[in-house]
This record gives sequence, C-alpha cells and structure tokens, in this order.
Amino acid sequence: MARKQTTQETAESMARRQREISVSEFFLKNRHLLGFDSPRKAIMTAVKEAVDNSLDACEEAGILPEIAVELRQVADGRFRVAVQDNGPGIVRAQIPKVFAKLLYGSKFHRLRMSRGQQGIGISAAGMYGQLTTGTATVILSRTKSAPQAHRLAVQIDTRANKPAVLSDEAADWRPEFPPEDEGGEPVVYSHGTQVAIEMTAQYVRGRLSVDEYLKQCAVANPHLRLHFRVTLLRKDKATGGAAEEEGPWQTYARAVRILPPPVAAIQPHPHGVELGLLMQMLKDSHARTLKGALQEDFSRVSARVALEICGRAGLNPKANPTRVAHQEIEALYQAIQETKLMRPPMDCLAPIGEEQILAGLKKEFPADFYTAVTRSPEVYRGNPFLVEVGVACAKPGANPDLGAEDPVRVMRFANRAPLLYMGGACAMTEAMEGVNWKAYGLPQPRGGLPVGPMVFFLHIASVWVPFTSESKEAIAHYPEILKELTFALQETGRRLSAYLGKRKRAAEADRKRSYIEKYIPHLALGLQDILALNDRQKSKIEDDLTKMLERTHLEA
Amino acid sequence: MARKQTTQETAESMARRQREISVSEFFLKNRHLLGFDSPRKAIMTAVKEAVDNSLDACEEAGILPEIAVELRQVADGRFRVAVQDNGPGIVRAQIPKVFAKLLYGSKFHRLRMSRGQQGIGISAAGMYGQLTTGTATVILSRTKSAPQAHRLAVQIDTRANKPAVLSDEAADWRPEFPPEDEGGEPVVYSHGTQVAIEMTAQYVRGRLSVDEYLKQCAVANPHLRLHFRVTLLRKDKATGGAAEEEGPWQTYARAVRILPPPVAAIQPHPHGVELGLLMQMLKDSHARTLKGALQEDFSRVSARVALEICGRAGLNPKANPTRVAHQEIEALYQAIQETKLMRPPMDCLAPIGEEQILAGLKKEFPADFYTAVTRSPEVYRGNPFLVEVGVACAKPGANPDLGAEDPVRVMRFANRAPLLYMGGACAMTEAMEGVNWKAYGLPQPRGGLPVGPMVFFLHIASVWVPFTSESKEAIAHYPEILKELTFALQETGRRLSAYLGKRKRAAEADRKRSYIEKYIPHLALGLQDILALNDRQKSKIEDDLTKMLERTHLEA
Repeated sequence: MARKQTTQETAESMARRQREISVSEFFLKNRHLLGFDSPRKAIMTAVKEAVDNSLDACEEAGILPEIAVELRQVADGRFRVAVQDNGPGIVRAQIPKVFAKLLYGSKFHRLRMSRGQQGIGISAAGMYGQLTTGTATVILSRTKSAPQAHRLAVQIDTRANKPAVLSDEAADWRPEFPPEDEGGEPVVYSHGTQVAIEMTAQYVRGRLSVDEYLKQCAVANPHLRLHFRVTLLRKDKATGGAAEEEGPWQTYARAVRILPPPVAAIQPHPHGVELGLLMQMLKDSHARTLKGALQEDFSRVSARVALEICGRAGLNPKANPTRVAHQEIEALYQAIQETKLMRPPMDCLAPIGEEQILAGLKKEFPADFYTAVTRSPEVYRGNPFLVEVGVACAKPGANPDLGAEDPVRVMRFANRAPLLYMGGACAMTEAMEGVNWKAYGLPQPRGGLPVGPMVFFLHIASVWVPFTSESKEAIAHYPEILKELTFALQETGRRLSAYLGKRKRAAEADRKRSYIEKYIPHLALGLQDILALNDRQKSKIEDDLTKMLERTHLEA
Repeated sequence: MARKQTTQETAESMARRQREISVSEFFLKNRHLLGFDSPRKAIMTAVKEAVDNSLDACEEAGILPEIAVELRQVADGRFRVAVQDNGPGIVRAQIPKVFAKLLYGSKFHRLRMSRGQQGIGISAAGMYGQLTTGTATVILSRTKSAPQAHRLAVQIDTRANKPAVLSDEAADWRPEFPPEDEGGEPVVYSHGTQVAIEMTAQYVRGRLSVDEYLKQCAVANPHLRLHFRVTLLRKDKATGGAAEEEGPWQTYARAVRILPPPVAAIQPHPHGVELGLLMQMLKDSHARTLKGALQEDFSRVSARVALEICGRAGLNPKANPTRVAHQEIEALYQAIQETKLMRPPMDCLAPIGEEQILAGLKKEFPADFYTAVTRSPEVYRGNPFLVEVGVACAKPGANPDLGAEDPVRVMRFANRAPLLYMGGACAMTEAMEGVNWKAYGLPQPRGGLPVGPMVFFLHIASVWVPFTSESKEAIAHYPEILKELTFALQETGRRLSAYLGKRKRAAEADRKRSYIEKYIPHLALGLQDILALNDRQKSKIEDDLTKMLERTHLEA
C-alpha cells in the first residue's frame, strides 16, 4: 500500500527532500505542454515535429523537399509513425542527441527563421512513444558524403536527459516513396533521414487530424512534394485475427519548383536587449574592445554608431568588454536606448508571398474571390517579424466546405508550419475577433468570428516566434504582432468589402434586369399592334429595347 | 554589423552547430511561458510565486501563515518586490538552489496537493529580475533551530542553470509586518523567510493585478493573515526629484484559525501508469521481489492484489523487479489493466469546503444568495482530484461590482491559488460556457458565459494539477476534469434556478398585490355607499379585504 506522509515538516526535513528535476522528467509529467495530451493529438504532434524538421533540413541544405509520412497500426490503439525525407541526412555522432535528448539542437542559439526553434519536438515524440509502449525511436539516415546509411535505435534516460543507444548498425538507404518523374527521368535521392516511433495513438480524420495538418502544410509550402499513407488493422472475419489493410499513397504535388529564398541568421538588435542580457553578452564577448563587441555581437551597429554609443555613455571604446563594471553597463544601456538605430535587417525573413498564398488557396479551396496581403516587416522585442493574410470567399452554397451561415474558417501558420490546436488562445484568433467586420459587410456576432463562406489564411514569419507553449500551437499576444495582424486583416476586409459590394450590386441589377426583360416581349407586341409593324420590325424593336437596357445597366 | 549566414548547409556543417540548451536559457528566451511577458504581468507573477511558496511551507510545517507583500518603486518602471512569511525558514545550504536554479525543489517527485509543483516559479522570478535589472535575488531566512538568520544574494548562471552566490552573511531576523494581537498578547515569529527581487515592472490596479491576486488569495485561504503595502515614487515639485510615498499596510484578517487538514503524499495508482513508466518504475524499484515492488511503489495494491496481478500475468511474484523482461512487463501491464483496484486514496486532497467557500464569498461579495458545492474526488490519468464551485448572486443593481447586464464574473483557483490570466484557454471557462444556463433561467449568448449580477468561484484540488503552461494560469482540458466541473456547475445552476424562480414569483406576486391594493379603498368606498356603512364598518371591510388578499397571496 502507499506510504503516507502527513507528519509535520521542519526546515531540515524539507531540505532533505529537495532535489534536481531533469528536464525530461519535467516534460514527461507535463507532456500536455508538448502536445501529447491525448492519443489523437499525439499522432498529429509527432508527424508535425518530424515534418517540420525535415522541411527545415531540406531548405537549409538547398534541397527541394520530398517527404513521405506513413501511419501503420500495429495493435489496437497503437501506431508506428514513420517520416522519411530526402534531406541532407544527419551525421552518425549527432543522431542519439538529436532524437533522444530534450533541449538539444542547432536552432535555439541563433536568430533565424525556421520551423523548429527549441530542440525539444522530435525527442519529445520519441519520449512519448517510449512512455506509452516502451519501444525505442528508430532512425535511418544517410548523408551525401557517407558511403552507407546508419540505423540506430535510441531511448531517453529521462533521469539524466541523456540518450541511450540500444542498437547501431550500418544499413542501406532505401527511399520508401514513389520516385518523382521529372521530365521522364525518375529522381531518386541517395540521402535523407527516416524516423520511426511506435506510440499509443488514435487516427481520426477531421479538423484536428494528421490529414488536415499535411493538407495545410502543402498549402503553405507549395515547393514541397508530400506523400501520405495509412495502414489500418481490420478484423479478419474468416480467421478472427487482424489483417493489415494498406492504403494507397496519397501525393500532394509541387506547385512550384523553387525553394523559399535563403534567410540569414541575425545578431540581436540593441533595442531588444535588456540590461541583464547586455551584461551577459559583454561578459561572453570574444571581441577585444567594447567598440568591437558592440559592432560584432549586435545588428545595426556600425563603427560610427559604436563610437557614438560609447561617447554618450562616457566609456572608453577600447575598454575590455568582459571587464566593464555594473554601473558602466547601466550607462551603456541608457546610451543604447537614446541612440537612433536602423531597424533590424529584414533579409532574415522569407514571406510566403501574395502570389504563392493565392496559388495555395486556389488549389485547395474553390471560391469566387481571392486576395492576399504581405505586410512589411516589423519588430517585437528586437525580433523582426512579418504578417501575411489571404482570403478565399466562395459564393453562398457553392463550396460545401465553407458554409454561408458558419463562422469563417481560419488557418493559422507560423514560419510556414500549420497551427491546428489551441486557436482560442492564439493572438491570431484575437486579431480576427477584434476587427469590426460589420464595417466590411460581414455579419459578426459580438466578440466572435465573422460569418460567411470563406477561409482566412494567417501567417507570421519571424526569427523567433513567441508561442504560448512548447507544443507551438498558438502565438503569444505581443501588442506589436496583434497590431500588424489587425492591419493586414483590415486591408483584406476593405478588398472583401469591395468585392461583396460589387456582388451585391450585380445581384441587384440582375434582379431588376430580369424583371424588365420579362416585359420587353409584351412591350414589343403592344408596339407592333399600335404601329402596325411587321414581325421583322417587331424583332428589331425587341433587340433595340434589350440593347438599350444593357447600356443603362452598364452605366448604372 | 551582423554576421550573415546564408550559405548552403551540409549534414556536417549542421552537426557543428548542434549543442545543448540549458533549461535556464530556454526559459529566459521563452519567459512568457513562465508569466513574465510584460512588466505588468511580471510583478503579479513574482508575487504569486513567492506567496504560493510561503503558504505551502507554512502549511507543511503546521504554522498558521502570516505573509507580508511589499512593492517598492525604485525608479521609473522598476520595482523591488519583497515577500516575507512566518514559515519554517530554509536551511542555509538549500537557499542558492531553491532561489537560483530552475527545476529544483521538493514538490515535483511526489504526488501531494500543493500550490507549487514544478520547482521553477521563484527562481524564474529571480531570473527575470536579473535579466531586466542585472541585480540579484536577496533572501533572508531563519529556521526555528538556527541561532541566527542568513542573508544571501544569488543569481542564476543561465548557461549552466546553476546558482552563483554573490554574498552570504549572518544577519538578524526582523519581521517586517505589524505583530498579530491575539488576545492582548502580540505574536511575533522568530523564524521565516523573506525574498526580495528588483525587476522591470509596472504596478496597475484592476482585474489582473497584484491587488486582485491577493484579494482572491484571502478568499480561498481564510486561515491566512496577509499584509500588503505599495510605495510609489512621486515627482517632488519643489526639488524636481522623486520622493517615496509610502502607502499604509493593508491587512486581510484571518476568517478562521485552523489550518487546512494535512494531506498525504501518495504513490501512483497502477491504472494511471503507462507501459513505459511501469518499466522505469520496476527498473528503479528498491523492493526485492516483484510482489514487493507492486505493493510498495503503487497505491491500492495489497499483498493479495499483488499476487493476483502476478498470477494473471504468469509471472513469479518472487522475481527480481529490476530484471523482468520487456515482454513480461507487457503481460504485467495487461494484467494490471484487467485487475479491479480500489480508487486512489482520497486523504491526499484537502478541499476548501462548502462552508469556507461561502464564508469567503460573503466576506468579499455582498449578495442576496449564496451556494457552494464540493464534489467527491475523481481520478484523471491516475491522479486524484476534486472540484468545488461557489456562487454569489446579487440583486440587479445592488452590487456595483456585479453588473446585471454583464457576463458573470469567474474566479478560478487551483490548489487554493488564484488563476488570473489566460481564462480563455482554461478548462474552467470551457465548462462554464458549455453548461446550458438558459435551462436555469440565466440569459446566455451562444457559446458564451451566462449573464447576470453574480460571481462564480471554481476550485480544483489535485495531487498534480495539469496546467496548460509553466506559468500555471489555466487548467488543461482533461475530459474527466471537464465532466466534474460541469456536474458541479449544473448543481449550482439548479439551486440558482430555484432561487431565481422564487425571486421572480415574489416579484410577480408583489406586482399583482400592489395592483389590487390600489383598488381596495375604492372598493370599500363603493360598498359603504351601497350598504350604507359607517366609517368604522368601512374600515373593517378594508382590513378584511386586505387580509383576504394576503391569504390568497400566501396560498398562491
């Protein structure tokens, strides 16, 4: 039976129970923070983490991405999730830490636009698989320069947050997806990575499913070729056992054959650096002088500006940056705030672009009107970001996916990755609900989403996307971000309003016109009678009246 | 200028950039996850973390808590937050790690109801102070058995997530708050802890403020004596400098002088343990036999039940638990699922109780009707929890705090700690909005909160509260929790409905009655005329008619 512990504590007895918590233990117990709260969400999150990594790796290596996602049911409530890419592969020595250690990676310590940023995701998926099934994550990877692939099976030692390698062998690289047929020549990649995790999972279609995630992924990444296959176990009536029912590969073709433009990593902008961080950065600087540190470790600080800052702070530009005193750094901090600086460089951001947003929407959402807005970059806490919004509006009743009486559908993206869960907690939803859509001719219940047969596409691109949780499902409510989202939505609102107004006027004119058209034959008949016209003359009068009506209509 | 990095990557170049991320670095960059996104929220979060720790420590040590919270403005946009308690104090050797290391504490590795559970909060507050002002967290603490207090100044080395002790000296313990006057005898505590952090902060009153947090804290902790003082800097017109304007101590008195009942720590319930965790627990077991491991490491497993589980799994009860094979553990896991077990022990939960909820509401919210419901404990993922709901309903217009046309006010609590932010993401809000309040006579816009002059008090008590983020502001949407919340809300809804029905009928009867009463004198005058009554007789008839009316009214 359980040991009870209800005795009264003292400072000493409490001290004996204090101990360190490993980050793996922490997230194992709080796995809902990572998106693994339910078997249904877990399978989507695992796919998302693997696909995000694959896309990042391909783009960094300048490879047009091709990804295969396979869900294979292995027992009741248990799936093997496998994701394979044609990326650059992962060096053998890095595989254990990349897949079986939380808070490890290449993307955290830089400011650069990428889908992954924390070094948690894929190891968390493996940890969830390990927790629920006791199995290991299996990785097959081959780099361009390696003669062979490696196959490793790894688990996390959660007490220490360290990888344990269960097996490690040389293997052949085998692409699992159908080869791409480019102009008659099949393209088969000889390198890439495949990760497979077995986990307690539930596969359900719908708005919060793997299917939806992949579909939105294809919309926001038109340069991606994506394959998806599900294999379910069906009860075999004859034998009473279960038989695998392998589904066909479903492929999202590429819409374009060019990669997003390469993005630069940037240094922190001085205006986004707090006092304490400034102290840390100077202490860690490799520069020999304070002036050098300001120039090298920050963005937008030229030699001239560095001297200006030092002068304003009353500090010697040649001082050793690691030995500046506390009070002097406070002066430096003040001087930085008072110095006018260029905004952060913006080549670190790669928007999807209005053209590609429209192409993506048109491919997936048949509608009557499309528009897209890409805003200029802005800055929150020193981090450059930009916002994009697209809209597809169908005629009422024309697209069964977009109900005329339903709230509009909202698709949210961050650095090209779809966000499915936690819409209610997201700054994007708040921005949608905060716009006065009635002013643009859309019905809107108080404090809610507007109503109509349309889908909104919202995208934020940033060197550091502020998510409300580690599972990266919702954007935090920074005022600068809300403002940009609102401006972009209002711009689409104005365009929607023009389109809806035109549609309304056209419908009105149509109604009038059909009304009058009904009377033209009667009128002609009457005139024939009065003026004693022959049939040819009557016909001509009818035509003339119709033409006159058209002219009036066009001029109206 | 910034170093750009746009060259194409290879597996090898990526590998060179892979590195470990310390948990402090992670949360420093993601500090909105910890509740430090804005200067306004930061000050509330810091107070919350310190007060939660103080209350936990006092209760564990069996001390009636007395806490003083002081906010002192030290510059424009900068405050010193100090919280002092009369708790058991902290052993000198533990102070650096408790206050300057994330993921360190006594509460994570046990299943026990407490406000703190993660070992992050107070160190995170210190880290935020350090980041924004470069200063250190200062702790003064004296344990009961120590001859003197210690004063330490600590910072976090965020690269390593390790404490750095800047100063460490013996000091006198000085309670800062006014001594309690208990029956003429002032009670002065000779032990306790004070923590002070200087940070970028903004002090604003309102729904999301320190004031509101402390007020709700007093409501949910009627055994707490709480002092609060704010000192602001005011521009001195004469000198042009700034002068301190020290506010008075504001005290929340105790409503009761008894502590919540002590709660037991429990072992995990077998039905809440996943396969992978079962493997880990057996591997870590100190028991010599499998039977012993099942009995000692889990709750609700008696010797008989342990044998039953082993039998069902086909395993030897005397086997060494650390050497059971993978497949055998799968069989054991299956056997556990198939074995009927008692529900987890419930003495690990201390509800606030209906009586104290009512007392708290009555103290803070003048109203016409009060009710409270404490549900029986239930279980989610093997963790016992229970739900409590209280309501105070005012007459329309009677309480300016509770508008008759506004959505009802909702106060949320977890293990007696108020939750102020992120209501939209909380299971409690979802439960409130999911109940059909119209059935209980309350107006409710579609999918929204009901409308009326009332405040709802929602509390969840659990050995492990599942929060949606490390800042502990919202409850995750576990179906079992939503169900219990809904049941409790529906029960209060039925009681509210009875009260509102009665109030409506009374108002209706009053209306009718006043209508008829108006006519009685006229009626009596007519009868006097017809029957030729004298004035005394007329008076009697009037009285009789009034009495008859009252009887009818009472019987209606």
